[in-house]
Order: sequence, then C-alpha cells, then structure tokens
Amino acid sequence: MRGYTSDKDGYLKRLRRIEGQIRGLQRMVENDEYCIDVLTQISAATKALQAVSLGLMDEHLRHCVAQALADGGKDADEKVREASDAIARLVRS
Amino acid sequence: MRGYTSDKDGYLKRLRRIEGQIRGLQRMVENDEYCIDVLTQISAATKALQAVSLGLMDEHLRHCVAQALADGGKDADEKVREASDAIARLVRS
Amino acid sequence: MRGYTSDKDGYLKRLRRIEGQIRGLQRMVENDEYCIDVLTQISAATKALQAVSLGLMDEHLRHCVAQALADGGKDADEKVREASDAIARLVRS
Amino acid sequence: MRGYTSDKDGYLKRLRRIEGQIRGLQRMVENDEYCIDVLTQISAATKALQAVSLGLMDEHLRHCVAQALADGGKDADEKVREASDAIARLVRS
Repeated sequence: MRGYTSDKDGYLKRLRRIEGQIRGLQRMVENDEYCIDVLTQISAATKALQAVSLGLMDEHLRHCVAQALADGGKDADEKVREASDAIARLVRS
Repeated sequence: MRGYTSDKDGYLKRLRRIEGQIRGLQRMVENDEYCIDVLTQISAATKALQAVSLGLMDEHLRHCVAQALADGGKDADEKVREASDAIARLVRS
Repeated sequence: MRGYTSDKDGYLKRLRRIEGQIRGLQRMVENDEYCIDVLTQISAATKALQAVSLGLMDEHLRHCVAQALADGGKDADEKVREASDAIARLVRS
Repeated sequence: MRGYTSDKDGYLKRLRRIEGQIRGLQRMVENDEYCIDVLTQISAATKALQAVSLGLMDEHLRHCVAQALADGGKDADEKVREASDAIARLVRS
C-alpha cells in the first residue's frame, strides 16, 4: 500500500486525461497545426504532469517519509535523502 | 506547412513514445508501485515533452519567425512577441 | 535554531558567491556584453540559487518536519503542507 | 551595441534589486530565520532573474537574431542555433 492509494482513482483519472492530451498533440502535428499552438498544448500537459508529481510527493512525505521518521534509525535518513533527490529531479525537469 | 513538417515523423514517434510512458505511469499507479519510482517516471516523461518543445521552438524560430522577419513590418514584431510569450510559458512550466 | 544552522557558514559563503555573480551581471550589462553571454551567466546564478534551495529543503525535512512528525498531531500535518507548498513554489520558479 | 541597450538602465535597476534580495537572504540566514521563509525569498529572487532572462531573450530575438536572419547566410543559422541553446539552458535552469 502506498501514500497515494486513498486517491488512486483520482490519480488514474488525471493520468488518463494527460494521455488524451498527448494523443491530441499527435493529431495537431499530423494536421500541421501552428507550432505555437502545439507548444501551448505541451505546456498544458507538462503542467498537468507536474501537478501529479506535486500531489504524489505530498502524499509520500505525509505517509512513507512520516512512517520512516516515526520508526527512526537509518531508514529515516535514507527516506529523506531519497525524497530530496526526487525533489531535485522535479525541480530540474 | 510548418517549420516542423520536415521532421513530422520524428515528432510523431517521440509523442507516441511519451504516450506509452503515460500509459506506463497508469499501470504503475494501478499496481501501487513505490511513489518515488512513479515520480522518477514522471520526470522522464516531463523531460521528453520539454525536449519536443525545444525542438519545435527551434524550428519555429528557424522558419516562421525567420520568414516574418525577412518580410518585415508589423507581422515581424507580432511573431517575435508570440515566440517570446511561448518561451516564457516553457520556462515557467 | 534551524535545520541549516550546522552549515550556516557554508550557506552564507554560497550566497555571497551568488551576490558576486549578480554584481558580475551588472558589469556585463554596463559593458554592453553579448546578450547570450549575459543569459549564460544568469542561468549559472539561477542554478546556484536552486542548489541552495534544495539544500535548505533537505535540512528542513530532516529537522523541522521530522521533529513535527515525531511530535505528531495537528502541527505535523501543517508542517508537511507547508513543505509541499514550498516544493511547489520551487518547481514552478 | 546590444539589443538591450535601449533599456540598459532598466536592466541595471532590476539586477541591483536582485542583488539586494541576495543580501537580504544572507541576513535571513545569519539571523537563523525560518527555512520556509528563506525558501520563499529564494523563489522570489529566482523568478526575478528569470524575468530578466526572458526580457533579454526577447530583445535578442528582436535585434541580434532578426539582423542575422535579414543578412541571411551561415551566420543566420548559427544565431538561431545559439538562441535555441540559450532557451534550452533557461528552460532547464
């Protein structure tokens, strides 16, 4: 079980909507639509992916990291380091 | 015809690969995979989308904006403003 | 006392180096240096600021958030929400 | 002479304000201010730097790139490639 389990359906719905946005982008390219319009749609899909990431990270801190910190010991340290690395990847992507 | 027309197949292939990544993300969530692994996959998809954007923007400058600047006049100004706005959206997404 | 207190000197040194980069940028603009070179320097300063943020966030999770989670209760929830909001600002800036 | 020359004073004023923000950050760290407040101030400085970048890029397209495209030839190609590389650095920083 994961931190996001309680809202699994919500996350799946958002990811399916993003999948639809990516298919829409393929249609735009096939129809030679205007580059700027394609770029605007990519920004929308990127923002939607980012929002999913931020939601997952919040749940992760609230559940997995919180649990590890409550248990203490070496695992707690490891979990925080892992979360910090994921935050760095998020910020840089 | 658009700036990206010459490599339309390349762009479509990249977008289909990203669509596959998004479907992979849905499977990960359905299988309750570890949050950090899901986040890593989202970062990969986001980076792939960003790379498509940067490619399209390059083509756009090289073709549409170049043409407008060659023609000069009010349209040239408008095209640069539009490109700058798209760059700002890219940077902020 | 804060999570970053143990490496306060390190953070101050990094911030002074960034201050130097910003003053360098002013000289570049005063000397009419080439736009692309100015942009490259701004990217370097932005990356340095981001690295400071990521370091502070790591310490924050490791100390303030960890303490609040160990204490439990309403404050723990609040601290995680606050950290998530800060991560979102980081990702979007 | 550069694209940003016409608004050099404006750019210098913005960079001096950012320098002030960085010095403010040093004071915050010296006074052990709360990590989240420090992070909020870093996000503000990062956004201000980004806005300077976007302004410079707009001027660069409007002047240097436009001129190179008007002149045509190999230099035009080179200038667009250089601008695209700078946009990529901006997006990734």
